[in-house]
Amino acid sequence: MTTVDISADLGESFGAYRLGDDEAMLDIVTSAHVACGFHAGDPQVMDRTVAACVARGVSVGAQPGFRDLVGFGRRAMEMTGHEITTDLIYQIGALRGFAAAHGTTVRHVSPHGSLANLAAVRADHAESIVDAVVAVDPAMTVVTQPGRLADAARVRGLRVAIVGYADRAYRDDGTLVPRAEPGSVLTDPDEVVERVRRMHVDGVVRTVTGRDIELRCDSLLVHGDTPGAVGLARRISAALRAAGVVLAALPAADVMPAVVPVAVADHKEEEP
Amino acid sequence: MTTVDISADLGESFGAYRLGDDEAMLDIVTSAHVACGFHAGDPQVMDRTVAACVARGVSVGAQPGFRDLVGFGRRAMEMTGHEITTDLIYQIGALRGFAAAHGTTVRHVSPHGSLANLAAVRADHAESIVDAVVAVDPAMTVVTQPGRLADAARVRGLRVAIVGYADRAYRDDGTLVPRAEPGSVLTDPDEVVERVRRMHVDGVVRTVTGRDIELRCDSLLVHGDTPGAVGLARRISAALRAAGVVLAALPAADVMPAVVPVAVADHKEEEP
Amino acid sequence: MTTVDISADLGESFGAYRLGDDEAMLDIVTSAHVACGFHAGDPQVMDRTVAACVARGVSVGAQPGFRDLVGFGRRAMEMTGHEITTDLIYQIGALRGFAAAHGTTVRHVSPHGSLANLAAVRADHAESIVDAVVAVDPAMTVVTQPGRLADAARVRGLRVAIVGYADRAYRDDGTLVPRAEPGSVLTDPDEVVERVRRMHVDGVVRTVTGRDIELRCDSLLVHGDTPGAVGLARRISAALRAAGVVLAALPAADVMPAVVPVAVADHKEEEP
Amino acid sequence: MTTVDISADLGESFGAYRLGDDEAMLDIVTSAHVACGFHAGDPQVMDRTVAACVARGVSVGAQPGFRDLVGFGRRAMEMTGHEITTDLIYQIGALRGFAAAHGTTVRHVSPHGSLANLAAVRADHAESIVDAVVAVDPAMTVVTQPGRLADAARVRGLRVAIVGYADRAYRDDGTLVPRAEPGSVLTDPDEVVERVRRMHVDGVVRTVTGRDIELRCDSLLVHGDTPGAVGLARRISAALRAAGVVLAALPAADVMPAVVPVAVADHKEEEP
Repeated sequence: MTTVDISADLGESFGAYRLGDDEAMLDIVTSAHVACGFHAGDPQVMDRTVAACVARGVSVGAQPGFRDLVGFGRRAMEMTGHEITTDLIYQIGALRGFAAAHGTTVRHVSPHGSLANLAAVRADHAESIVDAVVAVDPAMTVVTQPGRLADAARVRGLRVAIVGYADRAYRDDGTLVPRAEPGSVLTDPDEVVERVRRMHVDGVVRTVTGRDIELRCDSLLVHGDTPGAVGLARRISAALRAAGVVLAALPAADVMPAVVPVAVADHKEEEP
Repeated sequence: MTTVDISADLGESFGAYRLGDDEAMLDIVTSAHVACGFHAGDPQVMDRTVAACVARGVSVGAQPGFRDLVGFGRRAMEMTGHEITTDLIYQIGALRGFAAAHGTTVRHVSPHGSLANLAAVRADHAESIVDAVVAVDPAMTVVTQPGRLADAARVRGLRVAIVGYADRAYRDDGTLVPRAEPGSVLTDPDEVVERVRRMHVDGVVRTVTGRDIELRCDSLLVHGDTPGAVGLARRISAALRAAGVVLAALPAADVMPAVVPVAVADHKEEEP
Repeated sequence: MTTVDISADLGESFGAYRLGDDEAMLDIVTSAHVACGFHAGDPQVMDRTVAACVARGVSVGAQPGFRDLVGFGRRAMEMTGHEITTDLIYQIGALRGFAAAHGTTVRHVSPHGSLANLAAVRADHAESIVDAVVAVDPAMTVVTQPGRLADAARVRGLRVAIVGYADRAYRDDGTLVPRAEPGSVLTDPDEVVERVRRMHVDGVVRTVTGRDIELRCDSLLVHGDTPGAVGLARRISAALRAAGVVLAALPAADVMPAVVPVAVADHKEEEP
Repeated sequence: MTTVDISADLGESFGAYRLGDDEAMLDIVTSAHVACGFHAGDPQVMDRTVAACVARGVSVGAQPGFRDLVGFGRRAMEMTGHEITTDLIYQIGALRGFAAAHGTTVRHVSPHGSLANLAAVRADHAESIVDAVVAVDPAMTVVTQPGRLADAARVRGLRVAIVGYADRAYRDDGTLVPRAEPGSVLTDPDEVVERVRRMHVDGVVRTVTGRDIELRCDSLLVHGDTPGAVGLARRISAALRAAGVVLAALPAADVMPAVVPVAVADHKEEEP
């Protein structure tokens, strides 16, 4: 029997600004990637999002990003390793405050936007992110696409969950077709649902060249920014259940993994 | 034998901006009130401050403030209870991230600037701050001047430590002479040292009217913003030790206090 | 023949966050109060908003507010006169940059939210706002409800335009019924339209006690935050035109008013 | 007779944070590059800096930077052309507000930190900066090191002033030795003074390889961040005057240059 986690980016509102239909998405997902106040989210939003997760049994994870609210964390920033590690300790720590307040724990970390993109290809950034996870709580799972971050996390003994995208086209090597290229985003709901079903029942995905490749996906990311997206997420959830797939959050770490700690302070020496 | 905690506001630098001589002060104090990024401080500064505290055995506490960097948290802001509580959970949580990273815990909370002033006189703000402490970790001590916050914290079962000021003039009722009034700040080092000695050996302080009043002081606050202040702090520390006073951080809570929790979510209902 | 200005708060989006239906409102209004980046708005939004105003012949005005993005400028902040004056010079100056870039000028200033509320009742804040307007460009009109700001602006020789509210209940003294009280906001479109018509054709408004009082209104504020509000704004605009009211922006200052300048620097002396 | 402008980065304080000895530097320089609130500076600091410039006859210029206060504008950020152009219109416009308030004008623009570095080598960024200058006031001079920005500004008809560095080592091609390399910064005051003298009297600079190369320098940048730097700046100023060099701000544009405007709005179409 196959089990999969359905996740979404949540808690991205800020002050008077509302983003996404969190209430609707929380009824669909099993895990939430909660924004931590740097690229999106604010303390009140975080509190309400964590409370809503707890009320529904949704697993709480941190979605830290670059400190760039006006750019929504989507602009690449050149940062030192110590800057990245400490920005993440800060954001994850803040979310853990709300988790404590609501009697739960932060179970995973899923970097956002430009930070996530850089972490997939840059070994130094991947290492800096892993440093933060190990420093704060090595029982947290790192949720990421395949790449440098996944590799670095495994080397250091952390649990890793590979994220899959319901509505994005894949290339033969398992990477995503960039958004700028035609056909990168799938818009036909039937096609998306069928593709997600095959991903989880058969363990394969059809690439843009028409080939079927094996694809491991521990956490299926769905979007909730538009009304249509919520409806699609509902259909995906229903289709998976109909196919006998069990929807459940990523397993909690019952034993502390044997992580390889690296002192945060070490990084300071390398800075200019 | 008398024991007292010597404390200072630390970690108030931000990015390229340096404030205070933290290195010098960390060799004098037994507790640090660490800024948490809203009115001062940033993740790198917080990391280095907590690391320096751990290296010297200085107890780490949170100094949360208003989200007003340009005003340094000194400007009163009209906030709802939920805003105050969640802003504090966020800031304290962030600092706890760094404490975890360095193998220690956040032992106390000492509000900063305008938030501290309001909490001393407004029962609603005092309650909102206590809500945050109880929600995140009720083993933390609330460090504050006498007033509403001290009262509210005690009612809810939290430990309270009363802060004393080495260089500020007191009135007969035990409150401070406001800074705007003449004679509010003592500048003669000998007078400050003698006053601190009497505070801790005799348990009294001479007020502006010349009366001696009883004064309980669990934590003596010293300033480090100017070179002269550091020298004064050193003299105070030496004078207290010479008088047989033991300098030590506030005791850790070995048993969880029997706090009276109030759900954070309750406050949402009352908001406009 | 009666002439009235129809105005709205515009350019309140920020980064990825969209607020209001600016495109729809720009087809209705004759003047725009453009947010300047402190409580809402960002440089890209300001540029597009000013460009859209110029394309439609809508008059551009500044809507400066408190530096409190997460609170949307709705929380009272205790500020010195110099802080208020310089925050406004900064914001108005920034908007004037975009006005210059698009070949127009900033024609009026209309404070936002909590700053506007305080300016109506506090003489010191009113004066600080007037200082900023005089310092940057005394040809700008001050758009405000009746109160201290209107008084201070007139004393200093500035043009003043009194703002009227289409959907808010008035008391017998011409002030608004506070939002917290029942009946403060009118929701029946027919009632709102009829009331606006009487305001501009007969020069009176019916108060909550049922009396008709005289009401001067140079600029009628309409809201665009909800789809229903845009429809209502369209109906108001149509009803006014049908009643023979001419909709036009506030007149430009063809001659520089004889303002009474007060050096900005004077205020520094008074600060603590 | 040779004339040169002596300039410094000023107004970089923020709230309670003080940076640099602006008072001392303002007695030495003929032009000020004033921070505009994104990477450093705040409205009160800008107001006081412009007032102090006017009081001493120092020419006021804008020093816009990336919106990254914690990174002091020194971290590269990936931005679109429209983002750069509008961020600069905003910052320059804000400073022009203070210039108007104090009866002067913003005479030049000198990008800060990482933005300046990128503008020297990236044609697209250079163009985006020039767009902002042309849009707000094409009479402003662009102050920059040789490179893409200087080229783009000249092509569009703007005045350009090349900045020279008193205490930095040059390579044979006229570019600076990067800070990371040994010998990049000169620390011997006598050497710095002699080098500046030759720069302005003989029009040459000795490079790291020992060759003398021609170097045009319209504006000599001195630093004021440390007490030693202020003393050095004073010596440089005295040495230049002793050598018969006239110290004077960059000439004002008496006639509007024939700039080639490019509509800001055009850039929007190209964004992703």
